Amino acid sequence: MIQKIVECVPNISEGRNPSVVAACVEAVASAEGVKVLHFTSDYDHNRSVITFAGSPDGVVKAAVRLCKKASELIDLTKHTGEHPRMGAVDVCPFIAVKNVSEEEIIELAKKAGKRMYEEAGVPVYLYEKAASAPHRQNLADVRRGQFEGLPEKTKLPGWQPDFGTGYHETAGITIVGAREFLIAFNIELETDDVEIAKNIAKTIRFSSGGYPCVKALGLMLHETNTAQVSINFTDYKTTSLYTVVDKVREEAEKYGTTVKCTELIGLSPMKALIDCAEHYLKIKDFDYNNQVFENHFL
Amino acid sequence: MIQKIVECVPNISEGRNPSVVAACVEAVASAEGVKVLHFTSDYDHNRSVITFAGSPDGVVKAAVRLCKKASELIDLTKHTGEHPRMGAVDVCPFIAVKNVSEEEIIELAKKAGKRMYEEAGVPVYLYEKAASAPHRQNLADVRRGQFEGLPEKTKLPGWQPDFGTGYHETAGITIVGAREFLIAFNIELETDDVEIAKNIAKTIRFSSGGYPCVKALGLMLHETNTAQVSINFTDYKTTSLYTVVDKVREEAEKYGTTVKCTELIGLSPMKALIDCAEHYLKIKDFDYNNQVFENHFL
Repeated sequence: MIQKIVECVPNISEGRNPSVVAACVEAVASAEGVKVLHFTSDYDHNRSVITFAGSPDGVVKAAVRLCKKASELIDLTKHTGEHPRMGAVDVCPFIAVKNVSEEEIIELAKKAGKRMYEEAGVPVYLYEKAASAPHRQNLADVRRGQFEGLPEKTKLPGWQPDFGTGYHETAGITIVGAREFLIAFNIELETDDVEIAKNIAKTIRFSSGGYPCVKALGLMLHETNTAQVSINFTDYKTTSLYTVVDKVREEAEKYGTTVKCTELIGLSPMKALIDCAEHYLKIKDFDYNNQVFENHFL
Repeated sequence: MIQKIVECVPNISEGRNPSVVAACVEAVASAEGVKVLHFTSDYDHNRSVITFAGSPDGVVKAAVRLCKKASELIDLTKHTGEHPRMGAVDVCPFIAVKNVSEEEIIELAKKAGKRMYEEAGVPVYLYEKAASAPHRQNLADVRRGQFEGLPEKTKLPGWQPDFGTGYHETAGITIVGAREFLIAFNIELETDDVEIAKNIAKTIRFSSGGYPCVKALGLMLHETNTAQVSINFTDYKTTSLYTVVDKVREEAEKYGTTVKCTELIGLSPMKALIDCAEHYLKIKDFDYNNQVFENHFL
Protein backbone atom coordinates (compact mmCIF):
# COMPACT_ATOMS: atom_id res chain seq x y z
CA MET A 1 0.00 0.00 0.00
CA ILE A 2 3.03 2.32 -0.23
CA GLN A 3 2.03 5.43 -2.07
CA LYS A 4 4.50 8.05 -3.32
CA ILE A 5 3.20 11.59 -3.03
CA VAL A 6 4.72 14.63 -4.72
CA GLU A 7 3.49 18.19 -4.45
CA CYS A 8 3.97 20.83 -7.13
CA VAL A 9 3.31 24.58 -6.75
CA PRO A 10 3.67 26.33 -10.11
CA ASN A 11 3.26 30.12 -10.31
CA ILE A 12 1.83 31.32 -13.61
CA SER A 13 2.06 34.86 -14.98
CA GLU A 14 -1.68 35.54 -15.18
CA GLY A 15 -3.80 36.78 -12.29
CA ARG A 16 -6.41 38.93 -14.01
CA ASN A 17 -8.14 36.82 -16.64
CA PRO A 18 -10.11 34.07 -14.82
CA SER A 19 -10.73 32.05 -17.98
CA VAL A 20 -6.99 31.76 -18.65
CA VAL A 21 -6.41 30.70 -15.03
CA ALA A 22 -9.26 28.19 -15.30
CA ALA A 23 -7.80 26.71 -18.50
CA CYS A 24 -4.42 26.32 -16.77
CA VAL A 25 -5.96 24.66 -13.69
CA GLU A 26 -7.90 22.33 -16.00
CA ALA A 27 -4.70 21.39 -17.82
CA VAL A 28 -3.24 20.33 -14.46
CA ALA A 29 -6.38 18.48 -13.36
CA SER A 30 -6.56 16.58 -16.66
CA ALA A 31 -3.54 14.47 -15.69
CA GLU A 32 -4.40 11.15 -14.07
CA GLY A 33 -3.44 10.56 -10.44
CA VAL A 34 -3.29 14.28 -9.68
CA LYS A 35 -5.45 16.39 -7.40
CA VAL A 36 -5.62 20.20 -7.49
CA LEU A 37 -5.60 21.23 -3.83
CA HIS A 38 -5.77 24.98 -4.16
CA PHE A 39 -5.34 27.90 -6.53
CA THR A 40 -5.24 31.61 -5.92
CA SER A 41 -4.87 34.66 -8.17
CA ASP A 42 -3.51 38.12 -7.37
CA TYR A 43 -4.56 41.05 -9.56
CA ASP A 44 -1.72 43.44 -8.66
CA HIS A 45 0.89 40.73 -9.09
CA ASN A 46 -0.94 39.50 -12.20
CA ARG A 47 0.05 36.05 -11.07
CA SER A 48 -1.64 32.84 -9.88
CA VAL A 49 -0.40 30.00 -7.71
CA ILE A 50 -1.70 26.49 -8.31
CA THR A 51 -1.09 23.83 -5.64
CA PHE A 52 -1.48 20.25 -6.75
CA ALA A 53 -0.20 16.84 -5.76
CA GLY A 54 -0.27 13.19 -6.68
CA SER A 55 1.88 10.36 -7.98
CA PRO A 56 5.34 11.26 -9.36
CA ASP A 57 4.37 10.41 -12.94
CA GLY A 58 1.04 12.19 -12.68
CA VAL A 59 2.60 15.35 -11.28
CA VAL A 60 5.23 15.52 -14.02
CA LYS A 61 2.59 15.02 -16.69
CA ALA A 62 0.40 17.74 -15.14
CA ALA A 63 3.30 20.21 -14.96
CA VAL A 64 4.20 19.64 -18.61
CA ARG A 65 0.57 20.03 -19.70
CA LEU A 66 0.37 23.25 -17.70
CA CYS A 67 3.52 24.59 -19.35
CA LYS A 68 2.09 23.83 -22.78
CA LYS A 69 -1.28 25.43 -22.03
CA ALA A 70 0.23 28.52 -20.34
CA SER A 71 2.64 29.08 -23.25
CA GLU A 72 -0.33 29.06 -25.64
CA LEU A 73 -2.44 31.47 -23.56
CA ILE A 74 0.00 33.82 -21.85
CA ASP A 75 2.01 36.37 -23.80
CA LEU A 76 4.72 37.94 -21.65
CA THR A 77 5.45 40.63 -24.23
CA LYS A 78 2.09 42.11 -23.11
CA HIS A 79 2.33 41.22 -19.39
CA THR A 80 2.63 43.75 -16.58
CA GLY A 81 2.43 43.14 -12.86
CA GLU A 82 4.17 43.91 -9.60
CA HIS A 83 5.77 40.51 -9.16
CA PRO A 84 8.99 39.71 -11.05
CA ARG A 85 8.54 36.96 -13.67
CA MET A 86 10.49 35.28 -16.42
CA GLY A 87 8.08 32.71 -17.84
CA ALA A 88 4.40 32.05 -18.61
CA VAL A 89 4.82 29.29 -16.04
CA ASP A 90 7.27 31.35 -14.06
CA VAL A 91 8.49 28.98 -11.41
CA CYS A 92 7.60 25.34 -10.86
CA PRO A 93 8.94 23.70 -7.70
CA PHE A 94 8.48 20.01 -6.91
CA ILE A 95 8.25 18.89 -3.28
CA ALA A 96 8.69 15.37 -1.91
CA VAL A 97 5.88 14.72 0.56
CA LYS A 98 5.74 10.97 1.17
CA ASN A 99 7.95 8.01 0.31
CA VAL A 100 10.02 10.06 -2.14
CA SER A 101 13.75 10.70 -1.61
CA GLU A 102 15.62 13.94 -2.28
CA GLU A 103 17.38 12.26 -5.22
CA GLU A 104 14.07 11.17 -6.70
CA ILE A 105 12.52 14.62 -6.45
CA ILE A 106 15.54 16.21 -8.16
CA GLU A 107 15.32 13.64 -10.94
CA LEU A 108 11.61 14.40 -11.24
CA ALA A 109 12.27 18.14 -11.61
CA LYS A 110 14.82 17.44 -14.34
CA LYS A 111 12.45 15.07 -16.12
CA ALA A 112 9.70 17.71 -16.05
CA GLY A 113 12.08 20.44 -17.24
CA LYS A 114 13.31 18.32 -20.14
CA ARG A 115 9.77 17.54 -21.23
CA MET A 116 8.67 21.17 -20.92
CA TYR A 117 11.24 22.04 -23.56
CA GLU A 118 10.58 18.99 -25.72
CA GLU A 119 6.78 19.13 -25.59
CA ALA A 120 5.99 22.82 -25.03
CA GLY A 121 9.08 24.39 -26.61
CA VAL A 122 9.81 26.39 -23.45
CA PRO A 123 13.47 26.43 -22.33
CA VAL A 124 14.08 25.70 -18.64
CA TYR A 125 16.42 26.85 -15.89
CA LEU A 126 16.82 24.43 -12.99
CA TYR A 127 17.08 26.02 -9.51
CA GLU A 128 17.46 25.24 -5.79
CA LYS A 129 18.22 21.57 -5.13
CA ALA A 130 18.00 20.77 -8.86
CA ALA A 131 20.36 23.59 -9.92
CA SER A 132 23.20 22.64 -12.28
CA ALA A 133 25.64 25.09 -10.65
CA PRO A 134 25.82 26.88 -7.30
CA HIS A 135 25.24 30.33 -8.83
CA ARG A 136 21.95 29.07 -10.24
CA GLN A 137 20.45 27.83 -6.95
CA ASN A 138 18.84 31.03 -5.73
CA LEU A 139 15.54 31.90 -7.41
CA ALA A 140 16.13 35.67 -7.28
CA ASP A 141 19.48 35.26 -9.08
CA VAL A 142 17.99 33.03 -11.75
CA ARG A 143 15.07 35.40 -12.32
CA ARG A 144 17.19 38.57 -12.31
CA GLY A 145 16.56 40.57 -15.49
CA GLN A 146 13.11 39.00 -15.81
CA PHE A 147 11.46 38.17 -19.16
CA GLU A 148 12.63 41.40 -20.75
CA GLY A 149 16.28 40.64 -19.97
CA LEU A 150 16.30 37.18 -21.54
CA PRO A 151 17.80 38.13 -24.94
CA GLU A 152 20.86 39.36 -23.07
CA LYS A 153 20.91 36.95 -20.11
CA THR A 154 20.79 33.77 -22.17
CA LYS A 155 23.98 34.87 -23.97
CA LEU A 156 25.92 35.48 -20.75
CA PRO A 157 28.47 32.83 -19.71
CA GLY A 158 26.90 30.50 -17.16
CA TRP A 159 23.31 31.41 -18.07
CA GLN A 160 22.45 29.00 -20.88
CA PRO A 161 19.16 27.24 -20.04
CA ASP A 162 19.47 23.68 -18.69
CA PHE A 163 17.06 22.45 -21.33
CA GLY A 164 16.72 24.13 -24.71
CA THR A 165 18.55 27.20 -25.98
CA GLY A 166 17.57 30.86 -25.95
CA TYR A 167 14.02 31.51 -24.80
CA HIS A 168 10.42 31.18 -25.95
CA GLU A 169 9.39 34.42 -27.65
CA THR A 170 6.17 34.88 -25.66
CA ALA A 171 6.47 32.34 -22.82
CA GLY A 172 10.06 33.10 -21.80
CA ILE A 173 11.85 30.56 -19.63
CA THR A 174 10.34 28.38 -16.91
CA ILE A 175 12.33 27.96 -13.71
CA VAL A 176 11.96 24.38 -12.43
CA GLY A 177 13.32 23.02 -9.18
CA ALA A 178 13.04 20.89 -6.09
CA ARG A 179 12.55 22.30 -2.63
CA GLU A 180 11.12 21.43 0.76
CA PHE A 181 7.48 21.90 1.74
CA LEU A 182 6.87 25.54 2.63
CA ILE A 183 4.67 26.22 5.65
CA ALA A 184 3.15 29.70 5.97
CA PHE A 185 2.40 30.34 9.62
CA ASN A 186 1.47 33.53 11.45
CA ILE A 187 1.69 34.36 15.13
CA GLU A 188 -0.57 37.08 16.51
CA LEU A 189 0.53 39.01 19.58
CA GLU A 190 -1.63 40.51 22.34
CA THR A 191 -0.45 43.98 21.40
CA ASP A 192 -1.00 46.69 18.81
CA ASP A 193 2.67 47.63 18.85
CA VAL A 194 4.01 46.56 15.45
CA GLU A 195 7.57 47.36 16.54
CA ILE A 196 7.45 44.40 18.92
CA ALA A 197 6.39 42.11 16.05
CA LYS A 198 9.17 43.52 13.88
CA ASN A 199 11.77 43.00 16.59
CA ILE A 200 10.64 39.44 17.24
CA ALA A 201 10.66 38.70 13.50
CA LYS A 202 14.25 39.94 13.39
CA THR A 203 15.19 37.68 16.30
CA ILE A 204 13.84 34.53 14.68
CA ARG A 205 14.59 34.93 10.97
CA PHE A 206 17.74 33.41 9.57
CA SER A 207 18.77 36.46 7.57
CA SER A 208 19.15 38.41 10.82
CA GLY A 209 20.97 35.63 12.65
CA GLY A 210 17.99 33.55 13.79
CA TYR A 211 16.85 30.04 12.91
CA PRO A 212 17.84 28.34 9.64
CA CYS A 213 15.02 27.98 7.09
CA VAL A 214 12.91 30.62 8.82
CA LYS A 215 11.78 33.82 7.11
CA ALA A 216 9.79 36.35 9.15
CA LEU A 217 8.28 39.80 9.01
CA GLY A 218 6.51 41.95 11.59
CA LEU A 219 3.17 43.26 10.31
CA MET A 220 0.15 45.18 11.56
CA LEU A 221 -3.30 43.65 11.14
CA HIS A 222 -5.31 46.86 10.93
CA GLU A 223 -8.74 45.23 11.05
CA THR A 224 -8.14 43.77 14.49
CA ASN A 225 -5.40 46.18 15.59
CA THR A 226 -3.07 43.29 16.22
CA ALA A 227 0.67 43.00 15.71
CA GLN A 228 1.59 39.84 13.84
CA VAL A 229 4.76 37.90 13.14
CA SER A 230 4.32 36.41 9.67
CA ILE A 231 6.57 33.39 9.09
CA ASN A 232 7.63 31.07 6.29
CA PHE A 233 9.17 27.78 7.33
CA THR A 234 11.13 26.67 4.27
CA ASP A 235 12.16 23.39 5.92
CA TYR A 236 10.24 22.36 9.03
CA LYS A 237 12.57 19.38 9.47
CA THR A 238 15.44 21.81 10.07
CA THR A 239 13.54 24.26 12.27
CA SER A 240 10.23 23.06 13.64
CA LEU A 241 7.09 25.09 14.29
CA TYR A 242 7.34 24.56 18.04
CA THR A 243 10.92 25.85 18.24
CA VAL A 244 9.82 29.15 16.75
CA VAL A 245 6.51 29.37 18.63
CA ASP A 246 8.28 28.73 21.94
CA LYS A 247 10.89 31.38 21.09
CA VAL A 248 8.23 33.91 20.10
CA ARG A 249 6.39 33.24 23.38
CA GLU A 250 9.61 33.83 25.31
CA GLU A 251 10.42 37.03 23.38
CA ALA A 252 6.85 38.34 23.66
CA GLU A 253 7.09 37.95 27.41
CA LYS A 254 10.26 40.09 27.42
CA TYR A 255 8.26 42.84 25.74
CA GLY A 256 5.45 42.47 28.26
CA THR A 257 3.01 40.79 25.92
CA THR A 258 1.97 37.24 24.97
CA VAL A 259 1.02 35.12 21.97
CA LYS A 260 -2.71 35.50 21.31
CA CYS A 261 -3.06 32.77 18.72
CA THR A 262 -1.44 31.37 15.61
CA GLU A 263 -2.68 30.74 12.10
CA LEU A 264 -1.77 28.16 9.50
CA ILE A 265 -2.09 29.51 5.96
CA GLY A 266 -2.83 26.80 3.45
CA LEU A 267 -1.45 23.33 3.97
CA SER A 268 0.94 21.64 6.34
CA PRO A 269 2.33 18.12 6.14
CA MET A 270 0.95 16.05 9.02
CA LYS A 271 4.46 15.42 10.33
CA ALA A 272 5.10 19.13 10.99
CA LEU A 273 2.05 19.15 13.29
CA ILE A 274 2.61 15.76 14.90
CA ASP A 275 6.19 16.82 15.69
CA CYS A 276 4.56 19.57 17.78
CA ALA A 277 2.26 17.10 19.56
CA GLU A 278 5.31 14.95 20.35
CA HIS A 279 7.14 17.99 21.72
CA TYR A 280 4.37 19.47 23.85
CA LEU A 281 3.10 16.12 25.17
CA LYS A 282 6.74 15.10 25.82
CA ILE A 283 6.17 11.67 24.25
CA LYS A 284 9.27 9.53 24.69
CA ASP A 285 10.52 7.00 22.11
CA PHE A 286 7.83 8.08 19.67
CA ASP A 287 7.99 6.19 16.38
CA TYR A 288 6.26 8.46 13.86
CA ASN A 289 6.19 6.02 10.96
CA ASN A 290 4.80 3.11 12.93
CA GLN A 291 2.73 4.65 15.71
CA VAL A 292 0.65 7.02 13.61
CA PHE A 293 -2.10 4.78 12.30
CA GLU A 294 -2.56 6.53 8.96
CA ASN A 295 1.10 6.16 8.04
CA HIS A 296 0.34 2.51 7.35
CA PHE A 297 -2.10 3.61 4.66
CA LEU A 298 -0.17 6.34 2.87
CA MET B 1 -8.84 9.11 -4.00
CA ILE B 2 -11.20 8.71 -1.02
CA GLN B 3 -10.22 5.62 0.88
CA LYS B 4 -12.31 4.03 3.63
CA ILE B 5 -10.24 2.62 6.46
CA VAL B 6 -11.52 0.27 9.15
CA GLU B 7 -9.52 -1.16 12.01
CA CYS B 8 -10.24 -4.47 13.71
CA VAL B 9 -8.69 -5.76 16.95
CA PRO B 10 -9.74 -9.35 17.60
CA ASN B 11 -8.61 -11.10 20.78
CA ILE B 12 -8.11 -14.84 20.37
CA SER B 13 -7.99 -17.39 23.19
CA GLU B 14 -4.49 -18.66 22.50
CA GLY B 15 -1.31 -17.07 23.79
CA ARG B 16 0.99 -20.04 24.35
CA ASN B 17 1.25 -21.97 21.09
CA PRO B 18 3.03 -19.71 18.56
CA SER B 19 2.13 -21.88 15.59
CA VAL B 20 -1.59 -21.53 16.34
CA VAL B 21 -1.17 -17.75 16.70
CA ALA B 22 0.80 -17.64 13.43
CA ALA B 23 -1.92 -19.60 11.61
CA CYS B 24 -4.53 -17.16 12.90
CA VAL B 25 -2.47 -14.11 11.84
CA GLU B 26 -1.97 -15.68 8.42
CA ALA B 27 -5.72 -16.21 8.07
CA VAL B 28 -6.18 -12.48 8.61
CA ALA B 29 -3.34 -11.47 6.29
CA SER B 30 -4.68 -13.73 3.51
CA ALA B 31 -7.60 -11.34 2.92
CA GLU B 32 -6.99 -8.79 0.17
CA GLY B 33 -6.82 -5.11 1.10
CA VAL B 34 -5.89 -5.84 4.69
CA LYS B 35 -2.68 -5.12 6.56
CA VAL B 36 -1.71 -6.72 9.89
CA LEU B 37 -0.29 -3.86 11.94
CA HIS B 38 0.57 -5.67 15.13
CA PHE B 39 0.04 -8.81 17.15
CA THR B 40 0.97 -9.69 20.67
CA SER B 41 0.56 -12.81 22.85
CA ASP B 42 0.35 -13.14 26.61
CA TYR B 43 1.24 -16.45 28.20
CA ASP B 44 -0.52 -15.94 31.54
CA HIS B 45 -3.67 -14.69 29.86
CA ASN B 46 -3.29 -17.41 27.21
CA ARG B 47 -4.59 -14.84 24.78
CA SER B 48 -3.36 -12.90 21.74
CA VAL B 49 -4.41 -9.57 20.30
CA ILE B 50 -4.21 -9.02 16.53
CA THR B 51 -4.46 -5.47 15.18
CA PHE B 52 -5.25 -5.14 11.51
CA ALA B 53 -6.86 -2.65 9.19
CA GLY B 54 -7.91 -2.07 5.63
CA SER B 55 -10.94 -1.64 3.39
CA PRO B 56 -14.37 -2.42 4.90
CA ASP B 57 -14.85 -5.51 2.72
CA GLY B 58 -11.30 -6.71 3.32
CA VAL B 59 -11.57 -6.36 7.07
CA VAL B 60 -14.87 -8.28 7.24
CA LYS B 61 -13.43 -11.06 5.11
CA ALA B 62 -10.32 -11.23 7.30
CA ALA B 63 -12.36 -11.37 10.51
CA VAL B 64 -14.53 -14.21 9.17
CA ARG B 65 -11.47 -16.17 8.00
CA LEU B 66 -9.92 -15.68 11.42
CA CYS B 67 -13.06 -16.96 13.14
CA LYS B 68 -13.05 -20.05 10.94
CA LYS B 69 -9.35 -20.76 11.51
CA ALA B 70 -9.51 -20.12 15.26
CA SER B 71 -12.55 -22.38 15.67
CA GLU B 72 -10.61 -25.19 13.96
CA LEU B 73 -7.45 -24.74 16.05
CA ILE B 74 -8.61 -23.58 19.48
CA ASP B 75 -10.54 -25.84 21.83
CA LEU B 76 -11.97 -23.92 24.77
CA THR B 77 -12.89 -27.12 26.62
CA LYS B 78 -9.12 -27.44 27.17
CA HIS B 79 -8.30 -23.74 27.61
CA THR B 80 -7.08 -22.15 30.82
CA GLY B 81 -5.80 -18.62 31.35
CA GLU B 82 -6.14 -15.62 33.62
CA HIS B 83 -8.23 -13.55 31.25
CA PRO B 84 -11.98 -14.19 30.99
CA ARG B 85 -13.04 -15.58 27.59
CA MET B 86 -16.13 -16.90 25.88
CA GLY B 87 -14.95 -17.73 22.35
CA ALA B 88 -11.99 -19.00 20.33
CA VAL B 89 -12.13 -15.55 18.79
CA ASP B 90 -13.26 -14.03 22.04
CA VAL B 91 -14.02 -10.46 21.13
CA CYS B 92 -13.83 -8.75 17.76
CA PRO B 93 -14.38 -4.96 17.70
CA PHE B 94 -14.51 -2.93 14.49
CA ILE B 95 -13.34 0.69 14.55
CA ALA B 96 -14.08 3.40 11.96
CA VAL B 97 -10.81 5.21 11.23
CA LYS B 98 -11.31 7.17 8.03
CA ASN B 99 -14.28 8.07 5.83
CA VAL B 100 -16.53 5.55 7.59
CA SER B 101 -19.62 6.63 9.54
CA GLU B 102 -20.85 5.19 12.82
CA GLU B 103 -23.81 3.63 10.99
CA GLU B 104 -21.51 1.97 8.48
CA ILE B 105 -19.25 0.50 11.15
CA ILE B 106 -22.23 -0.95 13.02
CA GLU B 107 -23.52 -2.49 9.78
CA LEU B 108 -20.05 -3.90 9.17
CA ALA B 109 -19.94 -5.52 12.61
CA LYS B 110 -23.34 -7.11 11.98
CA LYS B 111 -22.28 -8.32 8.54
CA ALA B 112 -19.16 -9.91 10.02
CA GLY B 113 -21.14 -11.49 12.88
CA LYS B 114 -23.71 -12.99 10.51
CA ARG B 115 -20.98 -14.46 8.30
CA MET B 116 -19.06 -15.85 11.28
CA TYR B 117 -22.08 -17.96 12.08
CA GLU B 118 -22.87 -18.85 8.47
CA GLU B 119 -19.31 -19.65 7.40
CA ALA B 120 -17.59 -20.75 10.61
CA GLY B 121 -20.59 -22.07 12.54
CA VAL B 122 -19.79 -19.89 15.55
CA PRO B 123 -22.77 -18.06 17.13
CA VAL B 124 -22.26 -14.35 17.81
CA TYR B 125 -23.25 -11.81 20.44
CA LEU B 126 -23.18 -8.16 19.31
CA TYR B 127 -21.90 -5.63 21.88
CA GLU B 128 -21.18 -1.92 22.44
CA LYS B 129 -22.50 0.27 19.62
CA ALA B 130 -23.70 -2.79 17.69
CA ALA B 131 -25.61 -4.29 20.66
CA SER B 132 -29.20 -5.38 20.02
CA ALA B 133 -30.36 -4.33 23.51
CA PRO B 134 -29.00 -2.00 26.21
CA HIS B 135 -28.22 -4.83 28.64
CA ARG B 136 -25.93 -6.33 25.98
CA GLN B 137 -23.74 -3.27 25.40
CA ASN B 138 -21.15 -3.79 28.10
CA LEU B 139 -18.51 -6.39 27.28
CA ALA B 140 -18.16 -7.59 30.88
CA ASP B 141 -21.92 -8.29 31.07
CA VAL B 142 -21.92 -10.13 27.76
CA ARG B 143 -18.91 -12.24 28.73
CA ARG B 144 -20.14 -12.97 32.28
CA GLY B 145 -20.20 -16.75 32.89
CA GLN B 146 -17.51 -17.23 30.25
CA PHE B 147 -17.27 -20.25 27.96
CA GLU B 148 -18.17 -22.66 30.76
CA GLY B 149 -21.41 -20.81 31.48
CA LEU B 150 -22.72 -20.87 27.91
CA PRO B 151 -25.01 -23.94 28.20
CA GLU B 152 -26.92 -22.05 30.87
CA LYS B 153 -26.53 -18.46 29.64
CA THR B 154 -27.79 -19.07 26.12
CA LYS B 155 -31.06 -20.40 27.60
CA LEU B 156 -31.65 -17.31 29.77
CA PRO B 157 -34.22 -14.77 28.57
CA GLY B 158 -32.46 -11.94 26.75
CA TRP B 159 -29.27 -13.94 26.11
CA GLN B 160 -29.95 -15.70 22.82
CA PRO B 161 -27.04 -15.02 20.42
CA ASP B 162 -27.68 -12.36 17.75
CA PHE B 163 -26.60 -14.78 15.05
CA GLY B 164 -27.05 -18.54 15.39
CA THR B 165 -28.46 -20.43 18.35
CA GLY B 166 -26.74 -22.04 21.34
CA TYR B 167 -22.94 -22.11 21.10
CA HIS B 168 -20.13 -23.84 19.24
CA GLU B 169 -19.00 -26.85 21.31
CA THR B 170 -15.30 -25.99 21.27
CA ALA B 171 -15.20 -22.39 19.97
CA GLY B 172 -18.00 -20.96 22.15
CA ILE B 173 -19.47 -17.63 21.13
CA THR B 174 -17.66 -14.70 19.51
CA ILE B 175 -18.53 -11.21 20.77
CA VAL B 176 -18.56 -8.77 17.84
CA GLY B 177 -19.03 -5.03 18.07
CA ALA B 178 -18.22 -1.50 17.03
CA ARG B 179 -16.30 0.92 19.19
CA GLU B 180 -14.05 3.96 18.99
CA PHE B 181 -10.28 3.81 18.53
CA LEU B 182 -8.64 3.06 21.87
CA ILE B 183 -5.46 4.98 22.69
CA ALA B 184 -3.19 3.58 25.40
CA PHE B 185 -1.16 6.42 26.84
CA ASN B 186 1.02 6.60 29.95
CA ILE B 187 2.20 9.60 31.90
CA GLU B 188 5.33 9.28 34.00
CA LEU B 189 5.77 11.52 37.03
CA GLU B 190 8.99 12.92 38.50
CA THR B 191 8.36 11.00 41.70
CA ASP B 192 8.64 7.51 43.14
CA ASP B 193 5.48 8.00 45.21
CA VAL B 194 2.89 5.69 43.65
CA GLU B 195 0.17 7.16 45.87
CA ILE B 196 0.40 10.40 43.89
CA ALA B 197 -0.07 8.50 40.63
CA LYS B 198 -3.02 6.64 42.15
CA ASN B 199 -4.65 9.84 43.36
CA ILE B 200 -4.19 11.55 40.00
CA ALA B 201 -5.59 8.50 38.21
CA LYS B 202 -8.65 8.74 40.46
CA THR B 203 -9.06 12.43 39.62
CA ILE B 204 -9.06 11.90 35.87
CA ARG B 205 -10.88 8.60 35.35
CA PHE B 206 -14.58 8.64 34.57
CA SER B 207 -15.50 5.90 37.02
CA SER B 208 -14.34 8.13 39.89
CA GLY B 209 -16.03 11.25 38.57
CA GLY B 210 -13.39 12.41 36.07
CA TYR B 211 -13.41 12.73 32.30
CA PRO B 212 -15.77 10.68 30.10
CA CYS B 213 -14.10 7.91 28.09
CA VAL B 214 -11.01 7.97 30.28
CA LYS B 215 -9.82 4.94 32.25
CA ALA B 216 -6.77 5.34 34.48
CA LEU B 217 -4.65 3.52 37.03
CA GLY B 218 -1.70 4.58 39.15
CA LEU B 219 1.24 2.19 38.86
CA MET B 220 4.86 1.87 39.97
CA LEU B 221 7.54 1.30 37.33
CA HIS B 222 10.04 -0.58 39.48
CA GLU B 223 12.87 -0.62 36.95
CA THR B 224 13.12 3.17 36.88
CA ASN B 225 11.51 3.82 40.28
CA THR B 226 8.92 6.05 38.65
CA ALA B 227 5.26 6.55 39.46
CA GLN B 228 3.10 6.32 36.36
CA VAL B 229 -0.50 7.16 35.46
CA SER B 230 -1.54 4.55 32.91
CA ILE B 231 -4.48 5.70 30.78
CA ASN B 232 -6.88 4.35 28.19
CA PHE B 233 -8.69 6.89 26.06
CA THR B 234 -11.75 5.03 24.78
CA ASP B 235 -12.87 8.01 22.68
CA TYR B 236 -10.32 10.77 22.09
CA LYS B 237 -12.98 12.84 20.32
CA THR B 238 -14.87 13.07 23.63
CA THR B 239 -11.86 13.66 25.87
CA SER B 240 -8.64 14.61 24.13
CA LEU B 241 -5.10 13.68 25.12
CA TYR B 242 -4.20 17.30 25.87
CA THR B 243 -7.14 17.78 28.26
CA VAL B 244 -5.90 14.93 30.39
CA VAL B 245 -2.19 15.76 30.09
CA ASP B 246 -2.87 19.37 31.11
CA LYS B 247 -4.94 18.18 34.07
CA VAL B 248 -2.27 15.70 35.16
CA ARG B 249 0.35 18.48 34.95
CA GLU B 250 -1.83 20.68 37.12
CA GLU B 251 -2.50 17.93 39.64
CA ALA B 252 1.15 16.85 39.73
CA GLU B 253 2.07 20.41 40.64
CA LYS B 254 -0.34 20.30 43.56
CA TYR B 255 1.55 17.26 44.85
CA GLY B 256 4.87 19.05 44.39
CA THR B 257 5.97 17.04 41.37
CA THR B 258 5.82 17.35 37.57
CA VAL B 259 5.23 15.28 34.46
CA LYS B 260 8.52 13.70 33.38
CA CYS B 261 7.39 12.38 30.01
CA THR B 262 4.56 10.51 28.35
CA GLU B 263 4.41 7.34 26.30
CA LEU B 264 2.15 6.24 23.50
CA ILE B 265 1.57 2.47 23.52
CA GLY B 266 0.83 1.08 20.08
CA LEU B 267 -1.03 3.23 17.59
CA SER B 268 -2.83 6.54 17.59
CA PRO B 269 -4.97 8.04 14.84
CA MET B 270 -3.20 11.12 13.42
CA LYS B 271 -6.14 13.31 14.42
CA ALA B 272 -5.69 12.61 18.14
CA LEU B 273 -2.13 13.97 17.88
CA ILE B 274 -2.87 16.85 15.51
CA ASP B 275 -5.66 17.96 17.88
CA CYS B 276 -2.88 18.39 20.45
CA ALA B 277 -0.74 20.43 18.05
CA GLU B 278 -3.76 22.66 17.35
CA HIS B 279 -4.31 23.11 21.09
CA TYR B 280 -0.73 23.82 22.16
CA LEU B 281 0.12 26.02 19.17
CA LYS B 282 -3.24 27.81 19.64
CA ILE B 283 -4.00 27.62 15.91
CA LYS B 284 -7.19 29.54 15.16
CA ASP B 285 -9.75 28.50 12.52
CA PHE B 286 -7.83 25.30 11.85
CA ASP B 287 -9.46 23.11 9.19
CA TYR B 288 -8.21 19.59 9.88
CA ASN B 289 -9.64 17.94 6.79
CA ASN B 290 -8.36 20.52 4.34
CA GLN B 291 -5.21 21.93 5.89
CA VAL B 292 -3.46 18.68 6.68
CA PHE B 293 -1.86 17.77 3.38
CA GLU B 294 -2.12 13.98 3.77
CA ASN B 295 -5.87 14.13 4.35
CA HIS B 296 -6.23 14.75 0.63
CA PHE B 297 -4.62 11.38 -0.03
CA LEU B 298 -6.37 9.15 2.49
